[in-house]
Amino acid sequence: MKLAIDGMGGDHAPRSVVEGVLLALEEFPNLEVKLYGHKDKLAQFLTSHNRIEVVHCEEVIEGEDDPARSIRRKKDSSMTRMLEAVSEGTADACLSAGNTGALMAGGLLKVGRIEGVARPALATTLPTIDGQGFLMLDLGANADAKPEHLLQYALMGNIYAKKVRGIEKPRIGLLNIGSEEKKGNDLTKSVFSLLQESDLNFVGNVEARDLLDNVADVVVTDGFTGNMVLKSIEGTASAMMAMLKEAFMASGKTKIGALLMKSELKKLKGKLDYSEHGGAALFGLGAPVIKAHGSSNARAIYSAIRQATIMAEHNVTAVIKTTIAESNSLQGEKKEEN
Amino acid sequence: MKLAIDGMGGDHAPRSVVEGVLLALEEFPNLEVKLYGHKDKLAQFLTSHNRIEVVHCEEVIEGEDDPARSIRRKKDSSMTRMLEAVSEGTADACLSAGNTGALMAGGLLKVGRIEGVARPALATTLPTIDGQGFLMLDLGANADAKPEHLLQYALMGNIYAKKVRGIEKPRIGLLNIGSEEKKGNDLTKSVFSLLQESDLNFVGNVEARDLLDNVADVVVTDGFTGNMVLKSIEGTASAMMAMLKEAFMASGKTKIGALLMKSELKKLKGKLDYSEHGGAALFGLGAPVIKAHGSSNARAIYSAIRQATIMAEHNVTAVIKTTIAESNSLQGEKKEEN
Repeated sequence: MKLAIDGMGGDHAPRSVVEGVLLALEEFPNLEVKLYGHKDKLAQFLTSHNRIEVVHCEEVIEGEDDPARSIRRKKDSSMTRMLEAVSEGTADACLSAGNTGALMAGGLLKVGRIEGVARPALATTLPTIDGQGFLMLDLGANADAKPEHLLQYALMGNIYAKKVRGIEKPRIGLLNIGSEEKKGNDLTKSVFSLLQESDLNFVGNVEARDLLDNVADVVVTDGFTGNMVLKSIEGTASAMMAMLKEAFMASGKTKIGALLMKSELKKLKGKLDYSEHGGAALFGLGAPVIKAHGSSNARAIYSAIRQATIMAEHNVTAVIKTTIAESNSLQGEKKEEN
Repeated sequence: MKLAIDGMGGDHAPRSVVEGVLLALEEFPNLEVKLYGHKDKLAQFLTSHNRIEVVHCEEVIEGEDDPARSIRRKKDSSMTRMLEAVSEGTADACLSAGNTGALMAGGLLKVGRIEGVARPALATTLPTIDGQGFLMLDLGANADAKPEHLLQYALMGNIYAKKVRGIEKPRIGLLNIGSEEKKGNDLTKSVFSLLQESDLNFVGNVEARDLLDNVADVVVTDGFTGNMVLKSIEGTASAMMAMLKEAFMASGKTKIGALLMKSELKKLKGKLDYSEHGGAALFGLGAPVIKAHGSSNARAIYSAIRQATIMAEHNVTAVIKTTIAESNSLQGEKKEEN
């Protein structure tokens, strides 16, 4: 198992990336890493390791760089070259905590779509109160989605939930503004019919307010809505955490209260901690491309690496390829019948 | 000032409605109420009051009733007759905590749109961490919105923020998946240009994760996205509250901690308490139509009544009418120029 990793991407790179890689190498004896970045900067944090190959790159794609342009122009950047490694087949999967837009653009340009996939989707596992979590896609790879795109997201998410999470018949939900069949906008109404006609275990519409209650294993939505909902959840959670912290620091009395609550509050924070849930994966590309959170610490990088290895080991990409081909030929037959 | 109020709508009706009305009458000496509902059921909670006129209705529109059909068929329902009072001019504004869809359908059917308003919008004030709050619209009156609709939402929201909240130059934000100008889907990209060309104090795109940080006074979005974001915020807040409660009850130690925190936690809950922020208003109808939350207690009904009276007193409807007419003639001129 060989991973190509962008050593320079993310708010705390290269340190967090290098440390995360070292954690992962300890845990996974079969893992080998090609680490892309400036060799001097990486060397600051890197102990020599026989399963790390450092590939020196002169350039870095920054957070504020224009996605498509930076991929095309910064040919010797750690992200571009990491993607090329996957496309040339010298790595099984790749991972970056850098510029999300650039990674999506580069994924399309360098790794390329699986034949028959209309639009790749960004997918991540979100926590639920009961600790199970669910996969949500698309989180923003494609802001103007068509009904057929969402059907493909459901097919891809279904494979991931089966292969990676071991769920036999994943419950597929459609994110919508009401649970009744006829609710929603033109897009969700069309998707509802497509999902109903499919062989998937479609459990109907799910509402945003119920997402954290484990109502489905895979939730599909268009990239605009998915991004909105993800950021609303993150924003509300972090605002509440800030308010809670303020409440705890209000007086000597509350500080003692906080002390008594410490271990339970840590558990609560752990439940909402994205660093345990891996990164976001771009589904529909020719190889696993994983996006770790920009603010990833070493632990989050480690989790994202674990996710990348699992996706590669379970041949998620190959299964998506077969499934999409079958579904497309089925859709073609249906159209001919009509 | 005369309000028509649906005495039978909401999870805790008629009790919460009657009690909320009595609270409001105490506070506002100029308020008179026409209270619609079954006279015997209302009488259980109603002390006789010289500023309440009970209007007996045989029917009730239930939460699960089909919106448009129930308005048309249940002619003697408290909601239908309350709306008719406004349309006939025997009340200045109306309020219900009942079926939202029915209220929107009934608002269109009975009260009617302001001339020139393409689509009414559902608007509410959401809390921010600093306690200021902001107005967000549309929250779901219109799931498939066009760019011109969002421009009108901004115009209407601007008037509300000026008139009701006394903000001289309300900051108008566009809810989007990134802060940069070119971010978003086809809809938000078009709306961005429209808002930039307008005379409004447009502050650009705002992201869902920053909403609670007081980044704008009015945030416009399409009804599908608005509903999603609202429910994501509500769902996350209530899930976190549930997790927090669990953490507090975990052991004897944490229970003591909770006791020491009690007053601060109450403050925190207060900040997030929708019952203090009034209801949602349907903007763009010929008179103020207010939707109180389905789970409203007496306090929430009181807040919604206060909001209704303020909207009526400040002639929000009349100002919207003039502003929309001016804007439409301006848009018309622009089109002729091109």
